[in-house]
Amino acid sequence: MNILIKNAVILTMDDDNPLIRGDIGIADSKISFVGKCETFTPDRTVDVKGNIVMPGLVNAHTHSPMTLLRCYADDLALQSWLFDKIFPIEDTLTEDDIYWGSCLGCLEMISGGTTSFADMYFLNKGTAKAAVESGMRANISRSLQCFKEKPSYENDRMICEALDLYTEYNGAAEGRIQVELAPHAVYTNIPAYLRYTANLAEQLGAGVHTHISENMTENSDCMSKYGMTPTALFKSCGFFKTRTIAAHSVFLSDEDIRIYKEYNISIAHNPTSNLKLASGIAPIMRYAGSGINIALGTDGAASNNNLNMFEEIHLAALLQKGVTNNPEAVSAYTALKMATVNGAKALGLCETGVLKAGYNADLIVINTDKPHLTPYYDPFSAVAYSAQASDVESVMVGGRFLMERGVYSTLDVVKIYHNVKRIKGGIENAACSGKDV
Amino acid sequence: MNILIKNAVILTMDDDNPLIRGDIGIADSKISFVGKCETFTPDRTVDVKGNIVMPGLVNAHTHSPMTLLRCYADDLALQSWLFDKIFPIEDTLTEDDIYWGSCLGCLEMISGGTTSFADMYFLNKGTAKAAVESGMRANISRSLQCFKEKPSYENDRMICEALDLYTEYNGAAEGRIQVELAPHAVYTNIPAYLRYTANLAEQLGAGVHTHISENMTENSDCMSKYGMTPTALFKSCGFFKTRTIAAHSVFLSDEDIRIYKEYNISIAHNPTSNLKLASGIAPIMRYAGSGINIALGTDGAASNNNLNMFEEIHLAALLQKGVTNNPEAVSAYTALKMATVNGAKALGLCETGVLKAGYNADLIVINTDKPHLTPYYDPFSAVAYSAQASDVESVMVGGRFLMERGVYSTLDVVKIYHNVKRIKGGIENAACSGKDV
Repeated sequence: MNILIKNAVILTMDDDNPLIRGDIGIADSKISFVGKCETFTPDRTVDVKGNIVMPGLVNAHTHSPMTLLRCYADDLALQSWLFDKIFPIEDTLTEDDIYWGSCLGCLEMISGGTTSFADMYFLNKGTAKAAVESGMRANISRSLQCFKEKPSYENDRMICEALDLYTEYNGAAEGRIQVELAPHAVYTNIPAYLRYTANLAEQLGAGVHTHISENMTENSDCMSKYGMTPTALFKSCGFFKTRTIAAHSVFLSDEDIRIYKEYNISIAHNPTSNLKLASGIAPIMRYAGSGINIALGTDGAASNNNLNMFEEIHLAALLQKGVTNNPEAVSAYTALKMATVNGAKALGLCETGVLKAGYNADLIVINTDKPHLTPYYDPFSAVAYSAQASDVESVMVGGRFLMERGVYSTLDVVKIYHNVKRIKGGIENAACSGKDV
Repeated sequence: MNILIKNAVILTMDDDNPLIRGDIGIADSKISFVGKCETFTPDRTVDVKGNIVMPGLVNAHTHSPMTLLRCYADDLALQSWLFDKIFPIEDTLTEDDIYWGSCLGCLEMISGGTTSFADMYFLNKGTAKAAVESGMRANISRSLQCFKEKPSYENDRMICEALDLYTEYNGAAEGRIQVELAPHAVYTNIPAYLRYTANLAEQLGAGVHTHISENMTENSDCMSKYGMTPTALFKSCGFFKTRTIAAHSVFLSDEDIRIYKEYNISIAHNPTSNLKLASGIAPIMRYAGSGINIALGTDGAASNNNLNMFEEIHLAALLQKGVTNNPEAVSAYTALKMATVNGAKALGLCETGVLKAGYNADLIVINTDKPHLTPYYDPFSAVAYSAQASDVESVMVGGRFLMERGVYSTLDVVKIYHNVKRIKGGIENAACSGKDV
């Protein structure tokens, strides 16, 4: 089907021509043209009446089912948050719970203009099913943890689950789903297991999604235990030969930065989560200056507490100015690139993240007919500094509207709310009884 | 008129009883009861169906007409931003422009749950008119600047405008409007003029609204010029005898903190603006630990770029955790107090900022039937960390709905947009011609 989106202020995020006022032609799943075209015959025309159209946002690091734990445990020290609150509840979750949590995550992400996400969790078939149904693009990975050395990891439960997920879902839904391998972090894995995982990733040609240098304790523990940084440890175990997303990366040494650059490792910067868990502020200006690809992620809803990429864009730009004492640091345009082009690159999404002919029709419409977007002079600034996620009125992935003027077409809101509230009741009962959690 | 708001999750912000599930009775402009009351006979009942009700937010530092300059000049060094971009445009604004800019500011603030604001700008009758019409509470002050010593300041233009504003508007609209005196800052005023202003404030018993220690340059320049901090200079000129709002206060010395505490000076913390202009991050944990009242402000829309108090709440809580390396710093509840109770105290609003019997019926309804607010366990966390300004569905000031389920009752949106866009056109023409700006 040919769709014509007309009368748009188009933030293409293409450096050669970032701002175009005009139309976008979509032929099936791809963009046919951006600007003006006399010969395009649309089957359907959508007049966006001067609103902003830009590439869909890419959430490069999240744990979508953690929407189930939104506002469950806040303002706590990390150990208490994780061990007393989060882990015990996670132990009680079923694959069906994960499915509904991810449905809610997809719903929230779509509502706020996110079209692709990289997800790391467990019981991931629930997440994969939700992602397929939602119409979003998703990189999904089974979080891998191992504290004990074994003669072989072939029958390791988590490895088997990761492989099972890979077999069933990698390339599914016309390629919208990719399965990655996800060694959780250096502090939750022994080197032998990491080596096995790295080897497996190389064999499969699978992307890797992990947490690196999220906080200082992780770094100092790794140094004491192995005499090297988390980045160096991952490298020594054979990682980085396939596309890698390194979430957080708050504390990288000069040598770590060199490794990131050499191996084209993408950083998923999570400013909200890093502040909230008191990890710190990643010096992304320094990283970007070394040529590293910086994407943005929300992290999970238990440490954020939403999947709102507009807040991450906003914070990514603001924080660096404040901490580097340089108001020119991370411009609006740069922050928007992190959330679009750079995110697509991090997830290995070809021809995504930019609005130009031949690229995937993954785009969002931002309604600027709001008090807080009136007037605006620079549309990049308006999106980066003034807009709210709620200003997104339409979301398209691969030429298909997942939300149009606020109405969802793929997900059943009532059913999702009903099930999520049911699961919440179970969590509260378990927490109260003190039995299961 | 008696209004019953029923079926609410009520964040009273009253430390004695912060969370009540039930109803709120409003008799004319005041709260009659919170919780349950069998004997209250409503003329009108509003069922909020389990949504959150909390006190209206107080924006303790803004320049509302600067909505006209939203996204006009971003990502620039302070000098270039101020002298090349902002000041030249401000010189072209008329009182009518200011009126429409403030109408837009009020509209935006109402849309995001703000019920009271402290405004500092010029041609303030435009702002006062807008505030009266909007139904909001507003503290309004003429920004005072003077670089040249004179034998007398009685006929000083700015002082005369401030007094004229005071005479016409202080206590107007049934007390909703208060007029304050606003020496802009130490770097825009000579001590003799500051002394005159301090004396005037004392004579009138008027509140004072100023910028103090916004950035390091201000502090170091003041030290070189006068051998004292901005706070000490203000004090030496006779200030702080009346209620004072000190915006920013990013860099206070121990002695400054002592002075703030001694004189009950309230800080209007502006985290977004301080980051965006690369001023720094105010150590509000340290200030609060000394017993200073900390309120929140958005600053103007040229350095933010919105008047979204939810973003300030969010940032106030997140930033302190990140920079103090303490996830327990500034809890959700503390951040919400800054935006309500503390704000009301900063503005000298008696019986405002808390939902309890006898207090002003200034409240907002937050619609939690949204993906990003589903589910939630702790309603304080949900508002502080998950909510967007757009989740506010109704806003009441003194028992009158200014917005109800998204519909504004006091301001004409179409007319405001029309006029603001007209003014924007003039600003763009002036900027292009290079003549007037």
